[in-house]
Amino acid sequence: MIYIERRERFSAAHQLYNPNWTEEQNEAVFGKCANQNFHGHNFEMIVTVKGEVNPDTGFVMNLTDLKEIIRTNVTDKLDHKNLNLDVDFLHGKMTSTENIAIEAWKIIAPKIAEHGATLHCIRLVETENNAVEYYGE
Amino acid sequence: MIYIERRERFSAAHQLYNPNWTEEQNEAVFGKCANQNFHGHNFEMIVTVKGEVNPDTGFVMNLTDLKEIIRTNVTDKLDHKNLNLDVDFLHGKMTSTENIAIEAWKIIAPKIAEHGATLHCIRLVETENNAVEYYGE
Amino acid sequence: MIYIERRERFSAAHQLYNPNWTEEQNEAVFGKCANQNFHGHNFEMIVTVKGEVNPDTGFVMNLTDLKEIIRTNVTDKLDHKNLNLDVDFLHGKMTSTENIAIEAWKIIAPKIAEHGATLHCIRLVETENNAVEYYGE
Amino acid sequence: MIYIERRERFSAAHQLYNPNWTEEQNEAVFGKCANQNFHGHNFEMIVTVKGEVNPDTGFVMNLTDLKEIIRTNVTDKLDHKNLNLDVDFLHGKMTSTENIAIEAWKIIAPKIAEHGATLHCIRLVETENNAVEYYGE
Amino acid sequence: MIYIERRERFSAAHQLYNPNWTEEQNEAVFGKCANQNFHGHNFEMIVTVKGEVNPDTGFVMNLTDLKEIIRTNVTDKLDHKNLNLDVDFLHGKMTSTENIAIEAWKIIAPKIAEHGATLHCIRLVETENNAVEYYGE
Amino acid sequence: MIYIERRERFSAAHQLYNPNWTEEQNEAVFGKCANQNFHGHNFEMIVTVKGEVNPDTGFVMNLTDLKEIIRTNVTDKLDHKNLNLDVDFLHGKMTSTENIAIEAWKIIAPKIAEHGATLHCIRLVETENNAVEYYGE
Repeated sequence: MIYIERRERFSAAHQLYNPNWTEEQNEAVFGKCANQNFHGHNFEMIVTVKGEVNPDTGFVMNLTDLKEIIRTNVTDKLDHKNLNLDVDFLHGKMTSTENIAIEAWKIIAPKIAEHGATLHCIRLVETENNAVEYYGE
Repeated sequence: MIYIERRERFSAAHQLYNPNWTEEQNEAVFGKCANQNFHGHNFEMIVTVKGEVNPDTGFVMNLTDLKEIIRTNVTDKLDHKNLNLDVDFLHGKMTSTENIAIEAWKIIAPKIAEHGATLHCIRLVETENNAVEYYGE
Repeated sequence: MIYIERRERFSAAHQLYNPNWTEEQNEAVFGKCANQNFHGHNFEMIVTVKGEVNPDTGFVMNLTDLKEIIRTNVTDKLDHKNLNLDVDFLHGKMTSTENIAIEAWKIIAPKIAEHGATLHCIRLVETENNAVEYYGE
Repeated sequence: MIYIERRERFSAAHQLYNPNWTEEQNEAVFGKCANQNFHGHNFEMIVTVKGEVNPDTGFVMNLTDLKEIIRTNVTDKLDHKNLNLDVDFLHGKMTSTENIAIEAWKIIAPKIAEHGATLHCIRLVETENNAVEYYGE
Repeated sequence: MIYIERRERFSAAHQLYNPNWTEEQNEAVFGKCANQNFHGHNFEMIVTVKGEVNPDTGFVMNLTDLKEIIRTNVTDKLDHKNLNLDVDFLHGKMTSTENIAIEAWKIIAPKIAEHGATLHCIRLVETENNAVEYYGE
Repeated sequence: MIYIERRERFSAAHQLYNPNWTEEQNEAVFGKCANQNFHGHNFEMIVTVKGEVNPDTGFVMNLTDLKEIIRTNVTDKLDHKNLNLDVDFLHGKMTSTENIAIEAWKIIAPKIAEHGATLHCIRLVETENNAVEYYGE
């Protein structure tokens, strides 16, 4: 068993705002992230896949395939988008890094299984100081 | 003469869209940056100041002062903001990195002069692949 | 269950020197790190916390709270300090990265538990080539 | 139990080409990595070791020893080399990052055990977007 | 006048070997870089262009155009290639970073001039410790 | 004319404290940097040299020579040292990054001239946010 990882990037706008709360509650919990005009980030998504090494290729899985799965299904849909307004799989959800990672997992995991490998982790980096990791449990 | 630099960061939403153009022209020139719902970035602003070393301090200028000038006058006004909607000194301008750097220069340069030093360069990094530098000429 | 992490930084002096040993033993084991006049580093402390996502916020824990816990209890006490002389929770201990991470764990873990989350890992980076991770076991 | 890690680097040429396959098969699977004249990378190898902290030193293991083990046994044999032609422990193997990490594990693990610690992970970074991790299972 | 820059990357094999010299001379001057089986690097090429800001776009030059110029004319021809064997514009030249930057300048400068901007600098990074910059003089 | 650069690193302790001033003045100007027990950093020194390319080597100057000049004369004398107490060429000076860069210039410039090249810049990075550059004027 070995683990391979691929980093993809996307630049997006979002806001953290709970419509069931008052303005004051949103301000208290989300602070400047609650700005109704949105702010944004350069996000990095690092996808880790595990599996056995194929002796013919030396690969767990072809990174070209992994790259295509991530881009086509997730990062192309997030890049230069507004995460609150433009992304079907995030509609009605708080667009926290936690939720983005969880939703990306649901989409990517079955695609990777089709290639005989197993999704292990989705890491999402929001700033140089903040990140989340989800292992699908 | 020696050069000192300070990096500050801000996360913001913006769009590149010229209201005098058709949708098609905007799409052709700005591509996915023209998304009307905005996208965003983690920006880094690196401000370089030049001057003589003060023998009592070993400093061209106290970096604590330089940090305060950048934050109070520029990056606090850009952080977690929408550059097209929320920022007075960018109103009516294309919010390209070029223009942000130029407007920041106009604001910061006289503040640095008050400390006996000279603004040399504003570098603005938008992604790990793209940046601009402005020397005020 | 999801994992969130926050990076904080501190710049500090220290030395690695065992007072129960001879100068020669210290030199043999710690080499240039044994310099009695101290040396120093820019340290990065990355704290990882795990828990369930709160559906109202999309958060495991508010990163603003996590940042405050780390700064108030640990990194503000280490920043611009001498780890051998100035830090109460390191008195009488070798100031290796291993020991700093372990002592930070003892302080931070109960504070995070008060927020309904669980401390998972403290990672301490000393140089671009050296780091430790502690999982509290 | 605590984990320490050390990063070492090497710059090497390689190709991904299966001699049992046709040119077309190699092209289809390995793409531009199949170039018969080789290409190359700056690789980073991060070795993580786990163990108990020695109270006399504050160390799991002396990083100077760990550095020497990695350099002497692995990275000095890979640096400025052709991984397909110059490296005895890779002869006859696909020089994928997966296989390099696995072969390095076989060499390094017993050397670390001699120092009373346990090899935990070999991470091999090939580009800023691609990496593998091997835990020896 | 403002400066914009774009980073592109390529991974390539090369060797530093002067065929007019003896093996011993090559070894003495180029050391391990003279390995006849080649070694390799992940190179970064940062191209800086200067010009006036166009008020309609806020751009000196469209970064999409700059990216295409660099890729089509230079980095696509270097990526996953052997710089000594596969690259027409480097034939018969020492493949030092100095020479790669100079040859790239000759190719890129006129293409940028066609877009009304001026090539200012080509920076070529070979490792995290080594780089060159060429200003075309 | 082309510019080559080499990065070297050193980890050191220092303090910013003017002995001609009162404790209060030092605190007011240097803040936490005035800690009498010292603090420290991982410094990076990037040395840029300019010259003509030698057609036999493709080099302005052999980077192995440049590395040796920097290490032997400067960074080996600063690494794991106390800049206020252990370094002869900094005795009696404020150990600001400005002054370290200026003193390093005086030492390195003539050594580089012996190799037929010209020192262009010494860049000294103190933290990820702070740096200085000196051009010898």
